[in-house]
Amino acid sequence: MTKSRLEAFSDGVIAILITIMVLELKPPHESTFAAIGHQFPLYLSYILSFINIGIYWNNHHHLMHGVKRISGAVMLANLHLLFWLSLISVATAWAGETNFASAPVAVYGIVLVGSAAAYTILQECLIRANGRDSDFAKALGKDFKGKFSLCVYLVAVPIAWFLPILSCFCFIAVALIWLVPDQRFERDFDSET
Amino acid sequence: MTKSRLEAFSDGVIAILITIMVLELKPPHESTFAAIGHQFPLYLSYILSFINIGIYWNNHHHLMHGVKRISGAVMLANLHLLFWLSLISVATAWAGETNFASAPVAVYGIVLVGSAAAYTILQECLIRANGRDSDFAKALGKDFKGKFSLCVYLVAVPIAWFLPILSCFCFIAVALIWLVPDQRFERDFDSET
Amino acid sequence: MTKSRLEAFSDGVIAILITIMVLELKPPHESTFAAIGHQFPLYLSYILSFINIGIYWNNHHHLMHGVKRISGAVMLANLHLLFWLSLISVATAWAGETNFASAPVAVYGIVLVGSAAAYTILQECLIRANGRDSDFAKALGKDFKGKFSLCVYLVAVPIAWFLPILSCFCFIAVALIWLVPDQRFERDFDSET
Amino acid sequence: MTKSRLEAFSDGVIAILITIMVLELKPPHESTFAAIGHQFPLYLSYILSFINIGIYWNNHHHLMHGVKRISGAVMLANLHLLFWLSLISVATAWAGETNFASAPVAVYGIVLVGSAAAYTILQECLIRANGRDSDFAKALGKDFKGKFSLCVYLVAVPIAWFLPILSCFCFIAVALIWLVPDQRFERDFDSET
Repeated sequence: MTKSRLEAFSDGVIAILITIMVLELKPPHESTFAAIGHQFPLYLSYILSFINIGIYWNNHHHLMHGVKRISGAVMLANLHLLFWLSLISVATAWAGETNFASAPVAVYGIVLVGSAAAYTILQECLIRANGRDSDFAKALGKDFKGKFSLCVYLVAVPIAWFLPILSCFCFIAVALIWLVPDQRFERDFDSET
Repeated sequence: MTKSRLEAFSDGVIAILITIMVLELKPPHESTFAAIGHQFPLYLSYILSFINIGIYWNNHHHLMHGVKRISGAVMLANLHLLFWLSLISVATAWAGETNFASAPVAVYGIVLVGSAAAYTILQECLIRANGRDSDFAKALGKDFKGKFSLCVYLVAVPIAWFLPILSCFCFIAVALIWLVPDQRFERDFDSET
Repeated sequence: MTKSRLEAFSDGVIAILITIMVLELKPPHESTFAAIGHQFPLYLSYILSFINIGIYWNNHHHLMHGVKRISGAVMLANLHLLFWLSLISVATAWAGETNFASAPVAVYGIVLVGSAAAYTILQECLIRANGRDSDFAKALGKDFKGKFSLCVYLVAVPIAWFLPILSCFCFIAVALIWLVPDQRFERDFDSET
Repeated sequence: MTKSRLEAFSDGVIAILITIMVLELKPPHESTFAAIGHQFPLYLSYILSFINIGIYWNNHHHLMHGVKRISGAVMLANLHLLFWLSLISVATAWAGETNFASAPVAVYGIVLVGSAAAYTILQECLIRANGRDSDFAKALGKDFKGKFSLCVYLVAVPIAWFLPILSCFCFIAVALIWLVPDQRFERDFDSET
C-alpha cells in the first residue's frame, strides 16, 4: 500500500518534471526557420534533459520493483531525489539560453551531481530498510554504473570553467551508457513476465 | 506490474501535455470580444492539437491493452513517442501565433511525422517483444490507418511552403479519420466488458 | 480495465487543470498589502473556478462510479468535457484581470455553458452504452440540478452585457447549490462503504 | 473505491503543486554565478516550500491510510486543504522575490495558517465520518504536533510586521519538527509491511 503510493507519487512528479520542461521552449516571434535555428541550443539541452529524466524514471522504476519494506528515511530520501530532479528544468533552460556558457554548464553539472548523489542515498536507505542480506540488496549488486556516472559528473563540473563543451560531452556520454541496452536489464524484464 | 506502471506514466505525461497547452492561451489585455477574435487562429490550433493528443492517448490505450510482454526497447520507444508528443504544444503555439505561416506549419507537420513514426516504432518493438504469432500482433493487423496518416503528414510538410492552409486541411482530415466511429473499435469495447 | 484508465486519465487532467490555474496568479512586484489588494478580483475568480472544477471532479467521480460499460462515444464525450474544462483557467484569468468586465464575464459564462452541456452529453452517452433500463440510468434519475445549472448559465451569458456583476452572482449561486450537502449524496457514500 | 480515488486525486494535485513551484524559478539572463547569487532568496523560499508540501503529502498519506469511511464533508474538506496548498507557490515566489519583506512573509504565514487549519478540519471530518471510538480516531490521538504548528504559524504572522526574518525562522523550525524521525512514524511503517 505505502510502497505503491510512493511509486505513484514519484511517477507523478517525474511525469510532470519531464513535461513542464517543454514550457521553457517558447515559440519564436518570427515565423521563419532561422528563428528556430537560433533556438537550437535550447532544443539540444531539452533533448539531453528529457533523456536524463527518462533514465531516472526507468531506474527508479526498477529500483522500487524489488523493494519489500519502506521506512521514514526512504520517504525523505525519495523527496530529496525529487528535489534535485526538479532543478533540472531550470538548469536546462539556463544552459540552453546562454549557448552552454561556463557557469550554466557548471550549475547543470552540480544539479546532476546532486541528483546522482540523492539516488545513491535513496538506494542506501532502501538497503538499510530491507536488510543487507535481502534479495533486494543482492539484486542491486555493486551499482558500478551509478558510481561511475557520479564520478564523471564530479569531474565535469570543474571542467566547465575551461571547456564547457567538454563537460557537455561528458553528460551526453553518461546518458548514452544508460541508454545502451543492458543484458541484465532484459533479463529482468523476462523474469518479470 | 511493469506494464501497468508504463501505462500510468504514459497516461500521466499525456494528461499533462494535453493540459499545459492551455498555458499558451494567454488572456487578451483588452476586455472586448474583438480581442478574442484576434486570437482566433490560436484557438483553432489549440483545438486541433487537443484532438490530436486525445487520439494518441486513445490509441496508446488500445495498443497497450492487449500487450503481454514489455522489453527495454519498448520502454525507450515509449519515451521516444512521449518526446515527440511533448513538442506538439510549442509547435501549436507557434503555428497559431503566426496565423499559420509556412515555416511554423511545416514544423507542426514535422512534429506530427515524428509522433506518427515514433508510434509505429513503438508498435514494432511491442510486436518483437510479444512475437509475430502472438494474439497481440494478430489483433494489431496491418494498421492501414496509421501508415496512411504518416504518408499524409509526409506530404503535408513540403506543401506548407506553397500553401500552408492546404497542409492544415491535411492535418484536420487525418484527425477526422481517427475520430469517426470505427466498427472494430466498438467491437473491442464490447468484448472487453 | 478500460473504465479505470478512463477515470485515471480524467482525474489526472482535472487535477492538472485545477492546479495550473494558480500559475495565472502572478506575485505582485511591490511588497505591500495594497499590491495584493489590487489583485483581489483575480483571487475571487480563482476561488470560484477552483470550486467549479472541484465540483466537476466530484460529480464525474460519482457519475463513473456506477458505470458498467464504456463505448467509443463515451471516450469522445469525455474528451469533449475535458476540452471545455481546460478553457476555464483562461476565462478565469481574463475575467479576473479585467475586473469582471462584460465580454470576459460573458466568455466565462459560455465556457460554463459548454462544460455543462458536455457533461450532459457524456451522461447521455453513458446511458446509451449501459441501457435505459440499467441500474446506472435509474440511479442517475432526472438530473434536475444539472439541467437547472445549464439554464442559469444560459441566462447569465446575455445578462453579462448589461450587468456582469449579476452574471457573477448567478455563477456563484449555482456553485453553492452544488456545495450544499445533499441527502442522496450522503446515502451514496454510506452504501459504498 | 471512493477512498482510493480521493487519495489518487489528492496525490495528483500535491505532486503538481510541488512541481510547478519550479516554474517560478526563472533562469537568470546573464550567464554568471553572480546572477544566481542574486536569486538566492528565491531558492531558499523554494526549498522551504518544497519541504512543507512534501510534509503535507507525507502526513496526508498517513492520515488517509487508516480511514475506513469517507463522507461528502470529507470531500469538501479535502478540496479546501488543496486550495490552501495551491496558494503556497505564489506566496513562495512573492516572499523570495522581495527578499522576505514584511507583507509577503506575513502572507506566506497566512497561507500556512490556512493550510494547517484546513488539515485540522479534514481530520475532524474524518473522525466524524469514522466515529470517535473507531480505531482511526484512536490512532490519530491528540495530534499535539499539528496543533503546535498551527499556533507557531499564528504567532509568526504578526511578528512579520516587525521582524520578518524571525517569522521565517519559525516556519523553518516547524518544518524541522516534522522532518525529524518520529518513533511512532517508524512503528507505523513496520506494522504496515
